[in-house]
Amino acid sequence: MVAPARRLLILTEGQWHVHNAKTAMGVIRYGTEEVVALLDSTIAGRNVAEWMPGHDIPAVATLEAAMALPSPPDTLLIGIAPTGGKLPESWRGTILGAIRAGLAVHSGLHTFLGDDPEFAAAARAAGVEIVDYRRPPERRETAVGRKHRPGSRSILTVGTDCAIGKMSVALELRRSALKAGDRPAFVPTGQTGMMIEGWGVAVDRVISDFVQGTVEWLMEQAEARGDWVIVEGQGSLDHPAYSSVTLGLIHGATPQAMVMVHKPGLAEHDFDHLPDASFPIARLPDFIALHETVAGLVAPSKVVGIALNTSLYPDEAEARRIIEWTESETGLPAADPVRFGADDLWPAIRRRVEALPWVVANDARGGA
Amino acid sequence: MVAPARRLLILTEGQWHVHNAKTAMGVIRYGTEEVVALLDSTIAGRNVAEWMPGHDIPAVATLEAAMALPSPPDTLLIGIAPTGGKLPESWRGTILGAIRAGLAVHSGLHTFLGDDPEFAAAARAAGVEIVDYRRPPERRETAVGRKHRPGSRSILTVGTDCAIGKMSVALELRRSALKAGDRPAFVPTGQTGMMIEGWGVAVDRVISDFVQGTVEWLMEQAEARGDWVIVEGQGSLDHPAYSSVTLGLIHGATPQAMVMVHKPGLAEHDFDHLPDASFPIARLPDFIALHETVAGLVAPSKVVGIALNTSLYPDEAEARRIIEWTESETGLPAADPVRFGADDLWPAIRRRVEALPWVVANDARGGA
Repeated sequence: MVAPARRLLILTEGQWHVHNAKTAMGVIRYGTEEVVALLDSTIAGRNVAEWMPGHDIPAVATLEAAMALPSPPDTLLIGIAPTGGKLPESWRGTILGAIRAGLAVHSGLHTFLGDDPEFAAAARAAGVEIVDYRRPPERRETAVGRKHRPGSRSILTVGTDCAIGKMSVALELRRSALKAGDRPAFVPTGQTGMMIEGWGVAVDRVISDFVQGTVEWLMEQAEARGDWVIVEGQGSLDHPAYSSVTLGLIHGATPQAMVMVHKPGLAEHDFDHLPDASFPIARLPDFIALHETVAGLVAPSKVVGIALNTSLYPDEAEARRIIEWTESETGLPAADPVRFGADDLWPAIRRRVEALPWVVANDARGGA
Repeated sequence: MVAPARRLLILTEGQWHVHNAKTAMGVIRYGTEEVVALLDSTIAGRNVAEWMPGHDIPAVATLEAAMALPSPPDTLLIGIAPTGGKLPESWRGTILGAIRAGLAVHSGLHTFLGDDPEFAAAARAAGVEIVDYRRPPERRETAVGRKHRPGSRSILTVGTDCAIGKMSVALELRRSALKAGDRPAFVPTGQTGMMIEGWGVAVDRVISDFVQGTVEWLMEQAEARGDWVIVEGQGSLDHPAYSSVTLGLIHGATPQAMVMVHKPGLAEHDFDHLPDASFPIARLPDFIALHETVAGLVAPSKVVGIALNTSLYPDEAEARRIIEWTESETGLPAADPVRFGADDLWPAIRRRVEALPWVVANDARGGA
C-alpha cells in the first residue's frame, strides 16, 4: 500500500473533543502527509494548534469551505475510531459529497465503505478510490512458532488501558532509535498506524483463529525492514472487551521485550456501557509481572521500560515527579515519550534488551 | 438452526486415525442424529466399534457403497477439523458427487463450501442445502461487561492443550447434571459442538474485535436456556497459535468457575510445524493459579475440578491411580469423564461452585 503524497481533509464532526478522534490526532502528529483541515462544524473557525501546539490546521464547517482553501484536499480521511467501528449514519451525506467532489476516501472503520453499494457506485462515477485500512489480508494462516531472525530485536508496547498511547509510544521510540543511529522498524497493528506508515494489519479485524499467525507474519516482514522491530500494541490484557486481541499480539509477536504504557491518574477503564460495571486500572508492579508470565507461556519476554502518559497532570514539575516515582516503584527506566521525547528512554531500553539471555541465545542460533 | 433428524455419512478420508477426525468422533459420541457410515477408503470394511465400542458404524470406500446401505445417508458431514480449516483439494470430487446424489453437506471448515461457486451451483441444481457451521453471526458487537443472571451458574472448560477433550468434558458434565436433576445448558463454541447441539458460534471464526462481545451474547442466550451454563472451551492459554481465542472465551464468558482438562503423559503441545520449536505442556498447579489470575482480571473465577483424559494409559487401574494422584497434587476433585463418567465429579464441582462468594453475591444482586 504505497500511495502518492496526499492532502488530507480529516472528518471528525462533533468528535474532536472525545478520545474517539484518536485516529485524527495520530495522523496529525505522526503522519507524513499534509493535513489541510478538519471537517467539524462544532469547532469551525478554530485551529488544531489550540490543542496540539505546532500543528497549524484550520477546522472548517463544510466540504465547500475545505475546497475553497488555498491548498484544497484530495482525500477525505475518516478521523474517528468508535467502539465497534461502525459508521455514524449522519456522516453518509458528507462522505457521498466528498466522493462526488472528487476526493478519495480513507477509512479505518469496521464497516467497509468500499463495500457500500452507494459509496462504491459514486466512487466509480467520480474515478476516485476508497481505501478501507481495516480490510484484513487474504492470507489466513495459524501461527507456526516462528523464531526471530538472529540479530533482530523485538519490542512490543503493552498497556494498562486502551487509547492511552501505545501507538504513539512506539512511534516515539522509533524516532529516538533513528536519531541514535539504530535501524528500527515500526509495525502498525491498527488502522491509524497503517494510515501513518502505509503498511501493516488492523489485527482486531482479523478472524480470531488467524490473529497470532498474522502477527507472526508481520514480524517476519518487519525483521526484513529493520533490526529493532517496535510493535504497536492494542488494548490491554485486563480489558473486558479487547484482551484477546492484546494476547494475540503478545503470543503472535513473541516480543523479546515489552514497554508498559500507563496513564497515571486514570482509575478505571474507559468502559461505561453498564452502570454497575467497574473495571479498575491495574497496579504497575503486579501487571508487569503478569505480562512477563503470560508472554513467557510461549516465549520469554521482559518489561524493560515504562512509558507514562502524564496528560492528566498539566503541571510539568508534577509530571516529572510522577515519572521519577514510577522509576523507583518499578525499578525500570520511565519517561513520557509523547510529552518529553524518548531520547533518554531509548538507550536505557536498548541496553536492557541487549542483555536479555534469550536475545543473546537467538543471536547465537544463526550468527548475528 | 433446527434441522430434522438426519442420516449422516461422515467423510474422514485417510484422517480417521489422526486427531483431525475429532469432529467425526464428537458427532458419533455425542450427536443425536444417526450416523450410517464413515466414508474413508483407508478403513473400508472395518467398523467404528473397533475404536469406539458401542458404535456400530461401518466404514465404506465410496459414495455408491454408502447409498447402497439399507438406510442410505441424506447428509454428508465433513468429519475433520484440520489446522487452518482448509478443504483438502482431493475431497472436492467426493463432495460434488454427494451433492449430485442429493445429499445435503454439513461442514465446519473455515473455507465456506456454500460460497464455492461450483458447490453452490451443484446444490441449487440438486435442491440440497450446504450448511457451514463456522459462518459467524451477522451481529458484530464488542463486550459491554454484562453480569450473569442471578440464580445462574457458569462453568467453562479450560485445558492444558487443544484437542484433548474440552468439549467432551463439557458434554459429560451436562449429562451428569441432567441426571442429578439440575437444569444445565451446554454452550457450543466450536463447529463440532454446534453440529451436536444445533446452535452456538464457532468463536475462532469471529472477527477478533468481537470475540468477547459474541461470547457475552452466547452467555445471555444460555442463561435463558438453563441454570447451570456449561461452556465448551477452546485451545489453551499457552498455545502459540490459539491462546487469544482461549482468552476471548475466558473474558467473554466470565465463568464463575472453570474445570481444567488435562491429558497426563502428553509432554508437548501437538504443534510440530517447525523442527526446533518445542512448547511443553504446563504443570497443573501453576497453570490453575494462572487461570484464576488471568480470569480474575475481568471477573473472579476459580478452578473447581480437574477432568483428565487418561487415554494414554490403557490400563484402567493405572488411570485410576493417576486420577487419585492428581486429586492430591491439586487438592481438587478429579475424574476422567469420558472414560468413567462425570456422575461423581458433578456433585463435587456443584458444591464448590455454590460456595463461591461471587456466586452468592450475584444471586443477592437480583434475588435468585
